[in-house]
Amino acid sequence: AMNEVLNKRPHRRYNPLRKSWLLVSPQRTQRPWQGETDTSKPVAGAVHDPNCYLCPGNTRTSGVVNPDYKNVYSFTNDFPALRLDGDPIPAGPVTDSIASRLMKVEPEAGTAKVLCFHPNHSLSLSYMTVPDLKLVVDAWADETTELGAMPEINYVQIFENRGAMMGSSLPHPHCQIWATEHVPDEPALEGEAQLEYLKEYGTCLLCDYLAEELKLDERVVCQNDSFAAVVPFWAVWPFETLILSKTHAGTMPELSDKQRTDLADLLIRLTTRYDNLFNTSFPYTMGFHQAPTDGAKHDEWHFHAHFYPPLLRSAQIKKFMVGFELLGMPQRDITPESAAERLRALPEVHV
Amino acid sequence: AMNEVLNKRPHRRYNPLRKSWLLVSPQRTQRPWQGETDTSKPVAGAVHDPNCYLCPGNTRTSGVVNPDYKNVYSFTNDFPALRLDGDPIPAGPVTDSIASRLMKVEPEAGTAKVLCFHPNHSLSLSYMTVPDLKLVVDAWADETTELGAMPEINYVQIFENRGAMMGSSLPHPHCQIWATEHVPDEPALEGEAQLEYLKEYGTCLLCDYLAEELKLDERVVCQNDSFAAVVPFWAVWPFETLILSKTHAGTMPELSDKQRTDLADLLIRLTTRYDNLFNTSFPYTMGFHQAPTDGAKHDEWHFHAHFYPPLLRSAQIKKFMVGFELLGMPQRDITPESAAERLRALPEVHV
Ligand SMILES: O=P(O)(O)O[C@H]1O[C@H](CO)[C@@H](O)[C@H](O)[C@H]1O
Ligand SMILES: O=P(O)(O)O[C@H]1O[C@H](CO)[C@@H](O)[C@H](O)[C@H]1O
Repeated sequence: AMNEVLNKRPHRRYNPLRKSWLLVSPQRTQRPWQGETDTSKPVAGAVHDPNCYLCPGNTRTSGVVNPDYKNVYSFTNDFPALRLDGDPIPAGPVTDSIASRLMKVEPEAGTAKVLCFHPNHSLSLSYMTVPDLKLVVDAWADETTELGAMPEINYVQIFENRGAMMGSSLPHPHCQIWATEHVPDEPALEGEAQLEYLKEYGTCLLCDYLAEELKLDERVVCQNDSFAAVVPFWAVWPFETLILSKTHAGTMPELSDKQRTDLADLLIRLTTRYDNLFNTSFPYTMGFHQAPTDGAKHDEWHFHAHFYPPLLRSAQIKKFMVGFELLGMPQRDITPESAAERLRALPEVHV
Repeated sequence: AMNEVLNKRPHRRYNPLRKSWLLVSPQRTQRPWQGETDTSKPVAGAVHDPNCYLCPGNTRTSGVVNPDYKNVYSFTNDFPALRLDGDPIPAGPVTDSIASRLMKVEPEAGTAKVLCFHPNHSLSLSYMTVPDLKLVVDAWADETTELGAMPEINYVQIFENRGAMMGSSLPHPHCQIWATEHVPDEPALEGEAQLEYLKEYGTCLLCDYLAEELKLDERVVCQNDSFAAVVPFWAVWPFETLILSKTHAGTMPELSDKQRTDLADLLIRLTTRYDNLFNTSFPYTMGFHQAPTDGAKHDEWHFHAHFYPPLLRSAQIKKFMVGFELLGMPQRDITPESAAERLRALPEVHV
């Protein structure tokens, strides 16, 4: 009964993980839609592209020649957004209190790496095998450990921009790893929410949330022994999902071999469903949130992945995060429950 | 000396208005760029388009015929994201504490209107005359007063999505007005920051900030007697600007006739500079933040406009807010100071 009402009238939902609100306007889906529907297939392309900066054996802009790598390959970005060797920033004018209050600036040390998933230029996560993707999960864990051990680094952000629609200029399967001195705002907010929850209820926010979702079984898309993918109750993007580990762990290095294999399995199954949704190589930003690597204990932190895919109605029609979203708050039309229903109905092999 | 360093090395800047951080990576602008440069001109189009839902005399999807309006014209969206007549949402299961903690939902009352700026289909803000745009400013103020007076409405968000790149399906010059029961997260955050500042320092955050910017004269793009447009010290979008009123006012209805004319003047001059930047009809989201209409006094609130334009390098190349931005924090390459310098150098007539 609740869902029937939620499916018909504007309401707002709370995101307890980032302590923010979302506006849901399900009645807007009744608007007439004249847009196209798309039946383009993901095309199998060349295994090696001589013009790709990431293919084995090719020369990058920097002049470096990529090794003839066989599975994963990582290197420091040739034009990194962050550096470990920066000049210090001179302290601002201390006498001028308004400027020091309102124009705060700090140095940010860090590094930015690129991690190729596989030598095959035309693959995507969804077309990889579980053993191959397991090696990528291992690399994610190792990069977290190595970068996190550096004294200047307190947070390791692993993310993948997939598809031209998501600003990815290179189709070769890869992700980026930006590691920073300060914990960025998003994981900082999530950490704070998880810590408050732990203090108040004595349990983990995401352990509690996952238990509830598995019980209700309404927003769960797919699962295996170690992980579940759900459309969160507070999803902002039309087909946003959250991958949660079934046991409490704060970082990727803590995951067992079995859990890493299961994560690879779930990532492949979920991205295959995504490809099948609009019959396209599905664009998205995805990435992992884990505990800071600041040396402190972070019992509150529950490791997870976010998928933020922009598509709304077809392979071309995306949700624009503009206007009210930028100036007011996020807004969505289809409910998270109906998005989950559509994703659940799709096959886990490419059709 | 400070600026020279800031122009070369990664740093982070604080946004005191929304209490968040931004990563600046100016050294990335040294990356090679093979992309196109654009010389397309804004094209003057038809004054009336028979297929446009917003032109005078045309029939909308809903069957309503637009009046033969001569300047501004507003109506309730035919498929509004918000409604004033919603069914109540049944209270959730009170016995289930985890669901009620983690799956919070509330009704959201409100309304969504469309406001046409002018009957001429092919205009944009930048091509309007000051007297015509003054009538739009009056309409913004009147809508704020009327909607704000409704007991269900506590916030009035006026915004314009301009250009297909910003999800605007209708080129006809218009804006939207979404008025809500709850203050949306963004203005709520800004209100909180302004209130804290007022309590701590006894002055207005944005009055202090504007005084500082006018003194430094480094990020000011243009100004007149009543308003100034600056690239804020914490700008996220490449050519983001903030329009601030020179005297303290919380809402548009408080603005005098002279201030309204000056706002129209500044909007036209700023958007003309934007058009000239990449020789195109410049896309953006813009909108106004004003005090809530909840009946309380809001001395802390300083009325302002935000322009969030997506273009980065040409009329086609935009900044993608993906990956690190979605999962970590906003990031920019060119510094706000160099963006301001480029905007300042542009003429205020179309070239
Ligand atoms: O209301 P419109 O023009 O259909 O839609 C546009 O503006 C809305 C409010 O900013 C956004 O939610 C939509 O994503 C955007 O496409
Ligand atoms: O690093 P790339 O692939 O050049 O750039 C891409 O990812 C970055 C990190 O998410 C974003 O800041 C850029 O806007 C995006 O185009």
